[in-house]
Amino acid sequence: MKYRLLAPGPTPVPDRVLSIMSRSVVHHRTPAFERIFADCIQGLKWVFQTDDDVLALSCSGTGAFEAIFQNFFSPGDTVINITGGKFGDRWGKMAKVFGLNVVSVDVRWGDSVTLQAVQEALKSHPQTKAVVCVASETSTGARHPYEQIGQEVKKLSDCILVVDAITALGVWDIQPERDGIDILVTGSQKAMMLPPGLAFLSVSKKAWALSLTSKMPRFYFDLAKEKKAQAQNQTAYTPAVSLMTGLQESLLMMQEEGLQNIFARHARMAKATRAAMQALNLQLFPKHPADSLTAVCAPDGIKTNGVYSGLRDRANLTIAGGQDELKGKIFRIAHLGYFDELDILTVLSALEIILKQEGYRAFEPGASIAAASAILEEGFRPAE
Amino acid sequence: MKYRLLAPGPTPVPDRVLSIMSRSVVHHRTPAFERIFADCIQGLKWVFQTDDDVLALSCSGTGAFEAIFQNFFSPGDTVINITGGKFGDRWGKMAKVFGLNVVSVDVRWGDSVTLQAVQEALKSHPQTKAVVCVASETSTGARHPYEQIGQEVKKLSDCILVVDAITALGVWDIQPERDGIDILVTGSQKAMMLPPGLAFLSVSKKAWALSLTSKMPRFYFDLAKEKKAQAQNQTAYTPAVSLMTGLQESLLMMQEEGLQNIFARHARMAKATRAAMQALNLQLFPKHPADSLTAVCAPDGIKTNGVYSGLRDRANLTIAGGQDELKGKIFRIAHLGYFDELDILTVLSALEIILKQEGYRAFEPGASIAAASAILEEGFRPAE
Repeated sequence: MKYRLLAPGPTPVPDRVLSIMSRSVVHHRTPAFERIFADCIQGLKWVFQTDDDVLALSCSGTGAFEAIFQNFFSPGDTVINITGGKFGDRWGKMAKVFGLNVVSVDVRWGDSVTLQAVQEALKSHPQTKAVVCVASETSTGARHPYEQIGQEVKKLSDCILVVDAITALGVWDIQPERDGIDILVTGSQKAMMLPPGLAFLSVSKKAWALSLTSKMPRFYFDLAKEKKAQAQNQTAYTPAVSLMTGLQESLLMMQEEGLQNIFARHARMAKATRAAMQALNLQLFPKHPADSLTAVCAPDGIKTNGVYSGLRDRANLTIAGGQDELKGKIFRIAHLGYFDELDILTVLSALEIILKQEGYRAFEPGASIAAASAILEEGFRPAE
Repeated sequence: MKYRLLAPGPTPVPDRVLSIMSRSVVHHRTPAFERIFADCIQGLKWVFQTDDDVLALSCSGTGAFEAIFQNFFSPGDTVINITGGKFGDRWGKMAKVFGLNVVSVDVRWGDSVTLQAVQEALKSHPQTKAVVCVASETSTGARHPYEQIGQEVKKLSDCILVVDAITALGVWDIQPERDGIDILVTGSQKAMMLPPGLAFLSVSKKAWALSLTSKMPRFYFDLAKEKKAQAQNQTAYTPAVSLMTGLQESLLMMQEEGLQNIFARHARMAKATRAAMQALNLQLFPKHPADSLTAVCAPDGIKTNGVYSGLRDRANLTIAGGQDELKGKIFRIAHLGYFDELDILTVLSALEIILKQEGYRAFEPGASIAAASAILEEGFRPAE
């Protein structure tokens, strides 16, 4: 069977983007590259829906977080970190590595943080410099109420909100200024429809002010240097040029579709996938699922590695299994980035076969397709 | 005219590599990627000519140096850094940013360091943890005697040699064990014939031993974590997958050509370019030129930006001008990576026209071609 990459990241890359990246490389210190880069930054600001600076770094999303801890804090600074999944946990570990005083708001994997828990942490730690929150926790499929936290943080003079929107930006409507987000992060290989290798982050004036007093060493990830270079339509160091060329094209595709249509498509696919799981009598893992991916509990007696590896080995289709403590307990169906209605129906069709082969029979064949189709049908219409 | 990227980095990328990178992205947590990655690491060890670990990072060469300072040293450690160009200077600045005690062996831009100067620095600073040396200083075209330094450092128990071979590896014969190099660094966009976005470094056992006592914070660039992941044919964080796919192909091309043939081709192109400059009555800038690029002084009365920008604007051909303090003083002809004999003759033909248009007449038209051809002719032979 054909290889189908339908994972929550790397997500599928459109042919238009792949073929642009196969063009000869442009030297980065030329007017030709500067035009591409200026276009990319303008497009990124459009996707980020912000007037804040948006920076592009040649690294993964984890690299962008390293940049954040290096540029806006000093050893000993207090940050409140919300756990509840592999990525929430990772940013806390990383902050500790960089000598920050990490106040952990512990959340069970799959749950979403409550505003109250964050309010209490802020109250007990008035010197807090930042709250770090994941918008869409890729490992559990949960959505955290970062907007509510944003309204709290807005009231504080010397505290910023850092949001990991690696699998959220470009999926639903996030607006840094409106939502009280000072630093918003995403990666190229998610809703931006590119291969991995670039990370993007917006930085508010309030965050830049913190960077002035930061005493953490930084060089490759020196964001002030990036901002200065960007004023000349340049990057501080040699960027991943071919990915940047691809970004120009993927941003163009996003602009052609329009942000509201993109958000509606994602909402539709997410709603349809959740309805399909219900039709299969399967339980969702998170209490408050994000629209980027649907994490599903293994049915009784069936190991989810069987579902994940069955799809991989017998249908040549990559979704995602559980990570770390969720290994074998959940599987995750992605619907972010270059996914459409028929991709979802494809995954569901394959999933029904694999579930049956693995011995799960508590559903009517075709039930997931019927449930999802009733919702996805709305996407069947002439291209605009 | 067609666009011709003939710069010292990014260097031209072969069509074979570009088209592989336009294939659909493979998910990195799959057996398919693990096979590609294992192949890449094996190929890198072949190019690095080493049994040491070779790691691949998703960043530029500057990112690899950040990893080095974070993983092998502690604040206050002494390192001897050899200056003499933009990159030699950069590693010294970076080491200072990370709190190291930097003993600078100052070298005038264009000169090469002497063994004696390094010996004296080592003698005055017996606690030195590392000597940092650039093999081929891209900004000046100079070659430094890192092998002689390597023999000195080999004798010391607790000091390592870090060599920036970003424009040297894959150009001439460098062997870490033989040459006494503990950490050898290169980037994807040079002799490896790829777009920018990956950096590679070999790490000796002596260097790993230093990493055990290092107290510098690191996370994205945690090399021990990379080594551990590599044992499972994996990377610690999401890698630039499409570049890795391209790397597998470019390594295959290098293996088809053979290391000795690659080195001979580079030596031939370098020798020919130097002979051509002599035939044009132009002075080379460095005393000891590297085989990766030829830096040339502006002829009297002619600004090198005229040469560089003339080639760019009127021949659509990118070579390199001078950087920082050498801006307007030199131009640089590259011959590393996917360059062949006819590329050199192309650059020389265009250069003669631009020099004439800029008012420089102290040469016989065709003189550079004649001089270079006499050397390049050796490369005209049936493919093996």
